[in-house]
Amino acid sequence: MGLIEKIVSRNPSLPILNNVLVKTDNGMLRVSSTNLEIGINCMIGAKIEEVGEIAIPARVSSDFINNISDEKITLHTKNNVLFINSDKYKTQILGFDPKDFPIIPKLKEGPVSVIPSKILRNMLYSVVDSIAVSETRPELAGVYADFSSKKVIFAATDSFRLSEVCLNTNNANQHSVIIPRNTVIELIRITSEMDGDIEIKIGDNQISFYNNDFELISRLIDGNYPDYKKIIPGKFLSRALVQKIDLEKDIRLAGLFSSNISDVKLSCSENSILLKSKNSDKGEIETTVPAMLKNDPFDISVNYRYLLDGLKIIDSDKVILEFTGNGNPLILKPYDENKELTYLIMPLRS
Amino acid sequence: MGLIEKIVSRNPSLPILNNVLVKTDNGMLRVSSTNLEIGINCMIGAKIEEVGEIAIPARVSSDFINNISDEKITLHTKNNVLFINSDKYKTQILGFDPKDFPIIPKLKEGPVSVIPSKILRNMLYSVVDSIAVSETRPELAGVYADFSSKKVIFAATDSFRLSEVCLNTNNANQHSVIIPRNTVIELIRITSEMDGDIEIKIGDNQISFYNNDFELISRLIDGNYPDYKKIIPGKFLSRALVQKIDLEKDIRLAGLFSSNISDVKLSCSENSILLKSKNSDKGEIETTVPAMLKNDPFDISVNYRYLLDGLKIIDSDKVILEFTGNGNPLILKPYDENKELTYLIMPLRS
Repeated sequence: MGLIEKIVSRNPSLPILNNVLVKTDNGMLRVSSTNLEIGINCMIGAKIEEVGEIAIPARVSSDFINNISDEKITLHTKNNVLFINSDKYKTQILGFDPKDFPIIPKLKEGPVSVIPSKILRNMLYSVVDSIAVSETRPELAGVYADFSSKKVIFAATDSFRLSEVCLNTNNANQHSVIIPRNTVIELIRITSEMDGDIEIKIGDNQISFYNNDFELISRLIDGNYPDYKKIIPGKFLSRALVQKIDLEKDIRLAGLFSSNISDVKLSCSENSILLKSKNSDKGEIETTVPAMLKNDPFDISVNYRYLLDGLKIIDSDKVILEFTGNGNPLILKPYDENKELTYLIMPLRS
Repeated sequence: MGLIEKIVSRNPSLPILNNVLVKTDNGMLRVSSTNLEIGINCMIGAKIEEVGEIAIPARVSSDFINNISDEKITLHTKNNVLFINSDKYKTQILGFDPKDFPIIPKLKEGPVSVIPSKILRNMLYSVVDSIAVSETRPELAGVYADFSSKKVIFAATDSFRLSEVCLNTNNANQHSVIIPRNTVIELIRITSEMDGDIEIKIGDNQISFYNNDFELISRLIDGNYPDYKKIIPGKFLSRALVQKIDLEKDIRLAGLFSSNISDVKLSCSENSILLKSKNSDKGEIETTVPAMLKNDPFDISVNYRYLLDGLKIIDSDKVILEFTGNGNPLILKPYDENKELTYLIMPLRS
């Protein structure tokens, strides 16, 4: 039930959406909520004596469930009132006509892909911060998901930075879709509380993520995702290897003294990176992080927040920084060949 | 330094208050902040080579301190710039003239009382929620603190409920003062990170809490605290003993269905308390908690939020509810003779 509540919308023009639908379904109890963009169904084991359904306020029902013990409860409905009883409790929750609750569509297609919940979560977490928040280009307001026969790729960019993460897995069909940002955020939240595999179905402008207990159905974003691959430089000029935790700490410090466009200057030499930043109101700082350099020394100025966002998603002790030339992106990668993650920071425009 | 930042005020008419004063003091470094109501001094061990002082932005300095390692740093000032250097960092923080920083008063009196930090914190935590938030009666907007030769009593009431907590301890002088709400909140925050004893000084309209590293000085509230003792009934008619955790859970449940004035009805009979609440928009609930009753059964309606606030501060497995008659307060006490805590809920006015 906890999964259900957060997508309940506060939509004053359609108050039925503040409710969850509780319905007997195939010998189980189904609890559903929807904001018309995302729908969630949760299946709960129950002994069904008679079929029935009711819409009840999401807030009351989730508070109630969070506060009762694990004991067995009996539910029945009469005149749009839900009676919840146990040895200890006698409760009547005033509900609404279930016929007013919007229908959450079902996808008839077979599954495209099966991804373990924890891996799906990590992949989505790696790209979510790079999704464009502004809706000026609607196709950038989501995660590009590309299912080919041997791979799943998730990518996102807000044109300032770009994340791409890749998983080797066998898929049933080829599909390229754009999953809305809110759906991605919701999936990250839900999968963080889950084990096991998540199956993915793709239908007509809709996508569904499900396992035995739960299903999330979302609309997809219409439009063509830009050909982001051509932005990723094919080769690097220089490469620095650095302890992630050291770099993160010093970027945070340097960020305190960054100027309005949040830029920090990195100067990579043979065995260290010198970080410099200066702000005419606050002061200035210089700090040095040990590093190993391949090829020539280089200087680059980047937005320190984008750098921190990149380090946040890199799940290895050491991180690789790739310099691809002046006016070209800086690339961050984990120092771990098993992890296919690429994070690009576009050059600062001066 | 973390202790310092939160009382820094965002006072646009006196921007110097957004700074902390860093000053050499008796072979140590003193860092001070004030919002003109509360002043805090922290003493930091240092090797002083030359006396000096500077005001620097609180935000920059605390972010900086939170992000550097434990290594040794050197500080020096020149033209209102603070230079912080180490093997790793070279930093310049732009500061302000220390002469513009308000003077935090010193209390010359000797200590009135010495209370272990953890006990002081628990006592303040027991009364803070009962302080009146509205300032219509300024004397209720703080904690009444009564130091007599053998006792310290803290009390607070917003006229809906009242908390009183008492500690047996030897005090140097007799004093009765009213400590402002914000000072109490600040002290709870600070003492939660501290061990050891806190000494208390009381001066002319000011109070100070201090140990070797730290001092908080606050103004006191002018005025006479009402004679709250006469509201506390001298005896009870009936008394119920109940497991705190069970009662807390069921009150939370019943609260979901409470009406506008948040009332829940408790009916205490020989071996249980029946909780009932009803809301014409949401529904209704009845639930039963096991209890042991002394004397006659009783019914009482109370605001469930006040009941939860009372249970929150009662630090024992079992709680005593004392019924003192219709239209009289309900009293909550810990079931532990060593804890002198009394929490009163005034009757609902119908």
